[in-house]
Amino acid sequence: MMQDLIPTIPSLADAALSTALQERIDGKTKPLGSLGLLEGLMLRLGLIQGSLSPQLRDPQLMVFAGDHGLTAQGVSAFPSEVTWQMVENFLAGGAAVSVLARQHGLEMTVVDAGVAHDFAPRPGLIIAKIAKGTQDATLHSAMSIDQCATAIAAGKNLLRQRPGNALLLGEMGIGNTSSAALLLARLSGAPIAECAGRGTGLDDAGLTRKISVLDTVLQKHAYAKEPLQALAAFGGFEIAMMVGAILQAALERRVIMVDGFITSAAVLVAARLQPAVLERCVFAHHSEERGHTLMLQACGATPLLNLGLRLGEGSGAALAWPLLESSCRIMSEMASFASAGVSEKEAA
Amino acid sequence: MMQDLIPTIPSLADAALSTALQERIDGKTKPLGSLGLLEGLMLRLGLIQGSLSPQLRDPQLMVFAGDHGLTAQGVSAFPSEVTWQMVENFLAGGAAVSVLARQHGLEMTVVDAGVAHDFAPRPGLIIAKIAKGTQDATLHSAMSIDQCATAIAAGKNLLRQRPGNALLLGEMGIGNTSSAALLLARLSGAPIAECAGRGTGLDDAGLTRKISVLDTVLQKHAYAKEPLQALAAFGGFEIAMMVGAILQAALERRVIMVDGFITSAAVLVAARLQPAVLERCVFAHHSEERGHTLMLQACGATPLLNLGLRLGEGSGAALAWPLLESSCRIMSEMASFASAGVSEKEAA
Repeated sequence: MMQDLIPTIPSLADAALSTALQERIDGKTKPLGSLGLLEGLMLRLGLIQGSLSPQLRDPQLMVFAGDHGLTAQGVSAFPSEVTWQMVENFLAGGAAVSVLARQHGLEMTVVDAGVAHDFAPRPGLIIAKIAKGTQDATLHSAMSIDQCATAIAAGKNLLRQRPGNALLLGEMGIGNTSSAALLLARLSGAPIAECAGRGTGLDDAGLTRKISVLDTVLQKHAYAKEPLQALAAFGGFEIAMMVGAILQAALERRVIMVDGFITSAAVLVAARLQPAVLERCVFAHHSEERGHTLMLQACGATPLLNLGLRLGEGSGAALAWPLLESSCRIMSEMASFASAGVSEKEAA
Repeated sequence: MMQDLIPTIPSLADAALSTALQERIDGKTKPLGSLGLLEGLMLRLGLIQGSLSPQLRDPQLMVFAGDHGLTAQGVSAFPSEVTWQMVENFLAGGAAVSVLARQHGLEMTVVDAGVAHDFAPRPGLIIAKIAKGTQDATLHSAMSIDQCATAIAAGKNLLRQRPGNALLLGEMGIGNTSSAALLLARLSGAPIAECAGRGTGLDDAGLTRKISVLDTVLQKHAYAKEPLQALAAFGGFEIAMMVGAILQAALERRVIMVDGFITSAAVLVAARLQPAVLERCVFAHHSEERGHTLMLQACGATPLLNLGLRLGEGSGAALAWPLLESSCRIMSEMASFASAGVSEKEAA
């Protein structure tokens, strides 16, 4: 079953195209390398699309939401009901990510992957609920392997039905920094105290408690060493569904804009299954959440922004979006030394 | 004369407004402080505009261009003619900053503050030439005090005629990282070797030569300790005209988006004349040009982006522009806990 579930993602390595892209970048009217990280984006987008003039079409911001049984152990500063309340806020257009999606013309879809609430159907909401929240991982596996596979398959299907060639990842789920920290600790081997942070705003005592709970969970599920085992053991449904969306987006050679700590955890799981996923990813920002530094290292990623954000939702991905657009426009619209008649650098 | 030239810029400090702004920011549906640097932007924009819902209107990207006599001493990797060639490139829409201005709907104006070239008049170009390049500062003051005052007055007048409530600074001038490094060294007291960098791409030998030339210039103009004396001694016309534009923008309570090393030097001069200028400034990015770290320190600034840029033109200011827009939109459009019916943080 798992072989059908997890597509093979080929590497994009292409020496001839890389050389052609770099020559095109270097021929632009600017000192060599002076556009910094944007030049890396140009190269990456060119390789993803197999084009010297990559273009972005119909960007899809997908916000995956789910609830977490582990919140019963007091791992979050906010109550679980905030998950569905924030989903309503997204749909009403009042959340930070709603504002940013409007600003940048991103089509936003909220996916109920497993919220403990019955939503009225409406445009912009996809109800793909696996269950009303995961189980408490101190007592049980957060989800069964079947639920995990169902969530991944649903994520693949949802992505397949979306237009465009760019996916921006977002999430909402009170308690989900715990799942992300557990996945990081298990898949990277780093100590849980370095992977877990304050989430939405735990104080010192709350953080100590969270780390103690997560340590218990890690010990209880010591068997869960493979990526999919760990995903099932630690949750959540929104992360599992994102793994499916990421794999499908990678297969379709869409560029994937990764948001913060939780979406990076989904990328980490997908990358441990299919490493070439990372060639399609752009990491939007360095989150303030402790553990994101290690997470970025585990993904071999250099993020674009470092604004001290720790909001999630896809807000960082939306804020970084214009940089991706800039890279495409520069590649297509900026003059070369030859076309503009500008003198090149003098010989030393 | 100088008293008429330099307007008095009052402080924006307003404890009641600051408190009201912070309450509004903290009431938004997000964990406290989770929008990081954007929250500082919201506060700053609110204070500049004296409003709980700051709005950006008709942003003006002004690219000031000038030539530098000091290039005769071999301080740049590119020949001087690139200044006018790049002005043509800006006007033809082919430069990086042209592409970015189009992307973000910024009205771009190129100001000939002192380019060694006769431009045909056309839309988007303001010819306000003080002279065809400054003098070689190893031999003379780069400009006379009269020229310096004329350039500042011109900058004020130009700004006064532009619409909108936001100024984005850009510049073009082969050799102008030398002027900026000299101004930084003189006004901050830092050693020239820590202020001067590779500019458009000097190699090690070129950088050594540049530092040696700049050291000679500093010694020749040891008398030039006051900001306007230093500006006249070290140039350039584009920097002096920017100082005028910055002072006028600050007086009119426009937000000023500062680009990289050279535009920051103009801000530094303006701030040494009128410190409250800095309350109106947003620093777009941390440039790769050596010296910019010290420059930002001298301005007490925390930049928004760190993308490894070293292009100038206003490209960094344009790239950071959407973050300013996001801050305004979030302030106006994002829901509060009360309005969205979202539960607040649980008591510890």
